[in-house]
Amino acid sequence: MSTPVVGIVGAGQLARMTQPPAIALGVELRVLANSHDEGAAKVIVDTRIGDYRALADLQEFAKGCDAITFDHEHVPTDHIRALVAEGVNVHPGADALVHAQDKAVMRERLTAIGAPCPAWSRVTTVDDVERFAQEHGWPVVLKAVRGGYDGRGVWVVRSAKEARETVATGVELMAEAFVPFQRELAVLVARSPHGQGVSYPVVETVQEDGICVEVIAPAPAIDPEDAAQAQRIALKIANELGVTGLLAVEMFETEHGLVVNELAMRPHNSGHWTIEGARTSQFEQHLRAVLDLPLGSPKLTAKWVVMVNLLGGDEPDIFKRYEHVMAHDPGVKVHFYGKDVRPGRKIGHVTALGDDLDTVRAKARHAAVYLTSGEYT
Amino acid sequence: MSTPVVGIVGAGQLARMTQPPAIALGVELRVLANSHDEGAAKVIVDTRIGDYRALADLQEFAKGCDAITFDHEHVPTDHIRALVAEGVNVHPGADALVHAQDKAVMRERLTAIGAPCPAWSRVTTVDDVERFAQEHGWPVVLKAVRGGYDGRGVWVVRSAKEARETVATGVELMAEAFVPFQRELAVLVARSPHGQGVSYPVVETVQEDGICVEVIAPAPAIDPEDAAQAQRIALKIANELGVTGLLAVEMFETEHGLVVNELAMRPHNSGHWTIEGARTSQFEQHLRAVLDLPLGSPKLTAKWVVMVNLLGGDEPDIFKRYEHVMAHDPGVKVHFYGKDVRPGRKIGHVTALGDDLDTVRAKARHAAVYLTSGEYT
Repeated sequence: MSTPVVGIVGAGQLARMTQPPAIALGVELRVLANSHDEGAAKVIVDTRIGDYRALADLQEFAKGCDAITFDHEHVPTDHIRALVAEGVNVHPGADALVHAQDKAVMRERLTAIGAPCPAWSRVTTVDDVERFAQEHGWPVVLKAVRGGYDGRGVWVVRSAKEARETVATGVELMAEAFVPFQRELAVLVARSPHGQGVSYPVVETVQEDGICVEVIAPAPAIDPEDAAQAQRIALKIANELGVTGLLAVEMFETEHGLVVNELAMRPHNSGHWTIEGARTSQFEQHLRAVLDLPLGSPKLTAKWVVMVNLLGGDEPDIFKRYEHVMAHDPGVKVHFYGKDVRPGRKIGHVTALGDDLDTVRAKARHAAVYLTSGEYT
Repeated sequence: MSTPVVGIVGAGQLARMTQPPAIALGVELRVLANSHDEGAAKVIVDTRIGDYRALADLQEFAKGCDAITFDHEHVPTDHIRALVAEGVNVHPGADALVHAQDKAVMRERLTAIGAPCPAWSRVTTVDDVERFAQEHGWPVVLKAVRGGYDGRGVWVVRSAKEARETVATGVELMAEAFVPFQRELAVLVARSPHGQGVSYPVVETVQEDGICVEVIAPAPAIDPEDAAQAQRIALKIANELGVTGLLAVEMFETEHGLVVNELAMRPHNSGHWTIEGARTSQFEQHLRAVLDLPLGSPKLTAKWVVMVNLLGGDEPDIFKRYEHVMAHDPGVKVHFYGKDVRPGRKIGHVTALGDDLDTVRAKARHAAVYLTSGEYT
C-alpha cells in the first residue's frame, strides 16, 4: 500500500479531526456520511453518502480501504462480522466494539476481568429496581443498555415512583449503584492489532448535565499510585477486550479507589487536548493503531493542558468572535467543527496550555465563554 | 462571514499543509490546481482546475473567497492588481509580491531601506560581469532575476569564460558578490493587514546543492544580539514592503554581520518545523494573517526542533518504511506530501524535538535517511 486508505464510518467532528494527521502521514481518508453537510464531509475529498445500518452500503464503502474504523459506535456488530468474513480489516472488531455498544455486556465483562465497577444489575421492572435499591440504596442510576450518550439514556432515580417513569419508556435498562465520587477521571489508551499499548496521562473531566465541559491534563494533584492504577486498568481492559485503536475509559475517583464508569472505542472528547497538548494527538494515534503502525509518544507538550468544549449559544456566527479571543491570548487554540450552531450542541473546543494551572484554566474558560456567549469574563 | 473561505492559488505541499489549521479554525479552503493529482487537491474538497497565468481563471476562482493567497509566487502582478481593482482581497498584494518575484527589484528596495545586502548589479553582458568582478572579485554569483528556486537560476561563476555560458542562456541576470558565510540563517515573520507583526525564532538552515535539507530551531549558539538584529531586519522588510501574510528572510551569517540572501512571501520550507515545534504553525499563522486575525504565539514547544527534508530516492513506496522509523522513535513526526516519489524531489519532511540538540538532530536524520534510502544509520 503506497498510500493507505482508511475508511471512517461516520462524518462528524472525530472524523474531521482525523484529517489533519492523515494529511501529514499521507494517509487517504474516506468517510461514510449521511450528507455532504457533515463536518468531516466538508474537509475530506473522498466522501461517500450512505447508511451505516445497511450492510450493502458498508460493503461498497469498504472496497479498496486498507482499514475501516468508526466515528461513532452505532454500526451493527453483525455487519462488522460480515465485513470481516469478507476480508475487510475493521478496527475495533465486533467482539471488542460490543462492549462500547451494550453497557450490560460491558459490565459483565469488566466484572469478569476484575476491573472495578459499581454494583449493577439488569432490570426490567420497577420491582427489579426496588430490589436493587434495597440492597444498594437510593438513588439508583438507571441506564439505557444501548444507545445513550452525553447524558442521554441515564436517569438518576430517587424512588420507585421516579423509576416507574423511566421503566415506562420501554427502553432496555440496567441499574447501577450511585457512586459518591470526588471527581471524574478519564484514561485514553491505544492498542494496535499486534498488541502494542500506549497510555496517555490520566486527565480530570468536568461534566455538566452529563456533558463533558472541561478536561484538565494531567489530573491535578492525583496520587501517582492512583494514576498508575488507572492506566493499568485501562490497558488491561484494552487488552482483555481485544480493542484495536483507541479506548477511552471514564472513571470515578472515590474515597475507596477508582470505579470504571463508561467505555468509548474511538477518539474521545476527553482526548481533544492531545491535539496540541501531547506529542501524538489521539487522532494520529488512532490512525497509527488501525494501520498497525508503531504507536506515537503520548508525552505532554506542556506542564498543564486545559480543553473547554464550545457548546452552541444564541449566536450562529462565532467566527466574528475569533478576533477578541486571539488578541486576548495568542496561545489559545480554537477548534470549530464546521457545524451549524445550535444551543447546547458541541460545536468546537478551545485548548490552552502552560506552566500555571490556574492561568491556563482561566485562559481556556475565558475563550470558551466569550466564543459561545459573547460575555467577557 | 460565518465560515470564511480562503482561496489558495496553487495546490502543492504548502497549500496541503494549510488544510490542517484551516480544519481546526473552521476556515474553508479552496485551491486553484493544475490537476486533481496535486498534493493539496487530494485533501481539499473545493479544488478548482485552472491556470494561474490566466486572469479569467483567477477571476472565476476568486468569486466568493474572503481572501486570496498563494502556494507559490508566480502569479503575474498585473493579474493581482486587476483582482484587487475588482474588490478581491489578496494577500500579499502585488506591490509586496513583486519583491519575491524579481530579485533586482528586491535588491533595489532592500538597499533603499538599509537592509544588509551583498554588493550587486544588473548585468546583461560578459563585460558587465567582468567589470563587477574587477570591483568585487571572483567568484561572482549570477542569478536569474525572475523564476529561480531551490538552487535553480543561480550560477557561481569563477571566470569570464564561465560567465559567458550563463549569459548565453539569455536569461535576465543580476550579479552579486560571493558572500563567504559561516552559515545560513532564516527568519520567518508574519504581518497582518492591520500591521501586527510576529517573528519566529531565528533558525539555521543547511543547504546542499542549493536545496534546503535541514533546519535547526533555534539557530545553535547564535549571539542574542545577532538573533534580535535578524528579527528586526525581517520585521522591517515586512513592514517597509507592505507584506501581508508570511515572509521568510534567508540570511548569511558572516564574519562582518548578517546579509540578506533571499525573500519568500508564503509559508516556507525553513518554517516547516513550526508544525510541531511552535505553538502556532506557520500555516495557521499565514491563515490568521491573510484573514487579518490577531497573530498566534510563535513560541517554541521544545528546547530544540530539527526538521529534515525527505528528498525522493529510488523507492517509490516510502510508506512501508514508516514502521521502522516510528518504532525507532515514537516522537518523530513524518510528513508526506502525497506526491509521486522522484529522485531528488521534495516529497516530505520529518521533525524531531527535545532537550538535547545532538540527539534530536540524530533522530531526525536517522528517520529521513531511512525513509528515503532504506539505509539504517
